[in-house]
Amino acid sequence: MNVLILGGDGYLGWPTAMHLTAHGHTVAVVDSYLRRSLCRQENVEPLVDVPNLHQRTALWESIAGHHIPVYIGDLTDWMFVTEVFRRFSPDSIVHYAEQPAAPYSMLNRKAALLTLRNNLETTANIIFAVNQFCPEAQIVKLGTMGEYGTPNIDIEEGWLNVEHKGRQQKFLFPRQAGSLYHTTKIMDTDLLWLYVRMWDLRVTDLMQGPVYGIFTTENRDHEQLYSFLNYDELFGTVLNRFIIQAAAAYPMTVYGKGGQTRGYLNIIDTLNCVRLSLENPAQKGELRIFNQFTETFSVSQLADRVQQVARTLGLAAEIARVDNPRKEAEDHYYKPEHTGLLELGLDPHYLTDDVLAEMIEFALKHKDKIKPEQIYRKIRWNPDGE
Amino acid sequence: MNVLILGGDGYLGWPTAMHLTAHGHTVAVVDSYLRRSLCRQENVEPLVDVPNLHQRTALWESIAGHHIPVYIGDLTDWMFVTEVFRRFSPDSIVHYAEQPAAPYSMLNRKAALLTLRNNLETTANIIFAVNQFCPEAQIVKLGTMGEYGTPNIDIEEGWLNVEHKGRQQKFLFPRQAGSLYHTTKIMDTDLLWLYVRMWDLRVTDLMQGPVYGIFTTENRDHEQLYSFLNYDELFGTVLNRFIIQAAAAYPMTVYGKGGQTRGYLNIIDTLNCVRLSLENPAQKGELRIFNQFTETFSVSQLADRVQQVARTLGLAAEIARVDNPRKEAEDHYYKPEHTGLLELGLDPHYLTDDVLAEMIEFALKHKDKIKPEQIYRKIRWNPDGE
Repeated sequence: MNVLILGGDGYLGWPTAMHLTAHGHTVAVVDSYLRRSLCRQENVEPLVDVPNLHQRTALWESIAGHHIPVYIGDLTDWMFVTEVFRRFSPDSIVHYAEQPAAPYSMLNRKAALLTLRNNLETTANIIFAVNQFCPEAQIVKLGTMGEYGTPNIDIEEGWLNVEHKGRQQKFLFPRQAGSLYHTTKIMDTDLLWLYVRMWDLRVTDLMQGPVYGIFTTENRDHEQLYSFLNYDELFGTVLNRFIIQAAAAYPMTVYGKGGQTRGYLNIIDTLNCVRLSLENPAQKGELRIFNQFTETFSVSQLADRVQQVARTLGLAAEIARVDNPRKEAEDHYYKPEHTGLLELGLDPHYLTDDVLAEMIEFALKHKDKIKPEQIYRKIRWNPDGE
Repeated sequence: MNVLILGGDGYLGWPTAMHLTAHGHTVAVVDSYLRRSLCRQENVEPLVDVPNLHQRTALWESIAGHHIPVYIGDLTDWMFVTEVFRRFSPDSIVHYAEQPAAPYSMLNRKAALLTLRNNLETTANIIFAVNQFCPEAQIVKLGTMGEYGTPNIDIEEGWLNVEHKGRQQKFLFPRQAGSLYHTTKIMDTDLLWLYVRMWDLRVTDLMQGPVYGIFTTENRDHEQLYSFLNYDELFGTVLNRFIIQAAAAYPMTVYGKGGQTRGYLNIIDTLNCVRLSLENPAQKGELRIFNQFTETFSVSQLADRVQQVARTLGLAAEIARVDNPRKEAEDHYYKPEHTGLLELGLDPHYLTDDVLAEMIEFALKHKDKIKPEQIYRKIRWNPDGE
């Protein structure tokens, strides 16, 4: 299929591009380099420099023989959107093109408004572009498990049958997020659901948990093809952060009680989930929702796992319990369903000791590049400190 | 109290300003004249010209002795927002400042993006302004019953206790709207609920049904103080439209089967609902939600009522059943709760024959100004006609 990957420069976008071409699909990538700009502005650059998209696609073509056209521009700009959709006629769109960091979205008003505008207007433009240029095409959209928050009932896969006063109605599972970033993803889902009903779009919305990992089948032997590895509190995700912290002899920053439980997955599984979704498209007029993760851990469990493996490698890997800069439940019920992608054929890559050890060894190899002052600045969820 | 009315030029904003000053409150009004601009652009001007805010506040001051400062500017512009909040220190904010028309929001991509940006960024800026300048102030926000759509279960007042697999959770009542405009109001609710939890804001969200009417206690003897009366399909609401159609001998445009049922209220009741909400504020950290309407009618019932009363005035008042340009259920269950505002003391003004007759007589008085070509252009919910 002809897959247009929006946000193709990102932590997931670039590995997805390689993965889909390796599986026989034709791919083009679009990005505005927004994440790179924000990381530079906030002085939270990734561990290892990452070549730009033109450089990475050239390298991938020289290695694997797959050509990937690159479009650099801003998807909130309709003229750019129409140019991309006219030049590359997609039958499938993978939409990662969002400001992806919850802590960044809570940093201050400017960051909040940037997140709101970028994420919502990009999603809206994509909906209008598909309706105008390729109404039969499918959209595979990256959502987040964070849309659900941590309710006291089981989290079903996207939908909930509610029985109330003797009557029944199927609803989108009620959503209640803990950051503006996650709230924009709720809004995306609302927007997609509106236009699926109004215009018979074909949409898969992937409620993904935090992703960890560096290595994929495609990039394994080529460090120049690795994704961004952020270890700061704005753009770094928890497990990747703990691994860098362990390598840097920086006590792992467990927020509050550490009971915050989420569904996690290896980056390899993200690629397979997205590919399986594309290869088994949603129907016209269907908003299909999958919960995309493979196993659940609390923050404390992750820190303990990293500590255990790091100590076999001779590291101290201390754990620090720090005041929670977020406003979130630190001890809660969490039971999310996640059968849809398994039924499509997902073969999970679990968080084994080997997986952890390989990541820690990579971090140790680049230990000299870690900037400890970048790890934790105590940025609070309320910019005015309440 | 010091009440800042955002969207103070609107159909509801201006009568609210007069009403609150008449009840002893200090009021300032803010508007960008967005609605006036859009009506002019789309050539759907209201029935009677409406003086601008400086003219109306001067007239109101000469009649009632209440001074109302006017701030003209765009609330998506943070510099303007900070100027207003610094100059008029509000303890209460009434937020009507949104693109208010569902059909306009479905007109084309530009209209959709304008609606999305205006409504969301205004709400976000207000949240940030309150947090920064007046964290104790209350926000009374106009939502819409349209956020709920037409579910097959009873619509509770904002919240729903869900029992699922033997466990319980209270959620925002699941929302599923039928237009982009209504979806932006869902997003507003999500945004307010996020920051109520994060920053302990004090918010009342009023889920209002379609409003009808022209006359209020304050404007009754002064036609120059009446609100916009739109009768077109973009900015006109259904009962106001039917009344103008009856006066113009234009068959009333019932969409499809006409079974679409909604909760309606007289504009006088809107003013009382907003005042009662302000005078009985929500707590810190509370998102209080009221369903704001007084009685339910189907579209056919409204047309029949207008026909019945119009015929006593010697009008033919024919009813035309036209293809539904929207995508909506034309025959559905509808049972929404609405006790909260009654408990605060609301004394409803129901849709009596006298109320209808008075409105029809007003329309007849201005019959020569009605432009029949403005009434119905068959603007469809999908700009590309599906």
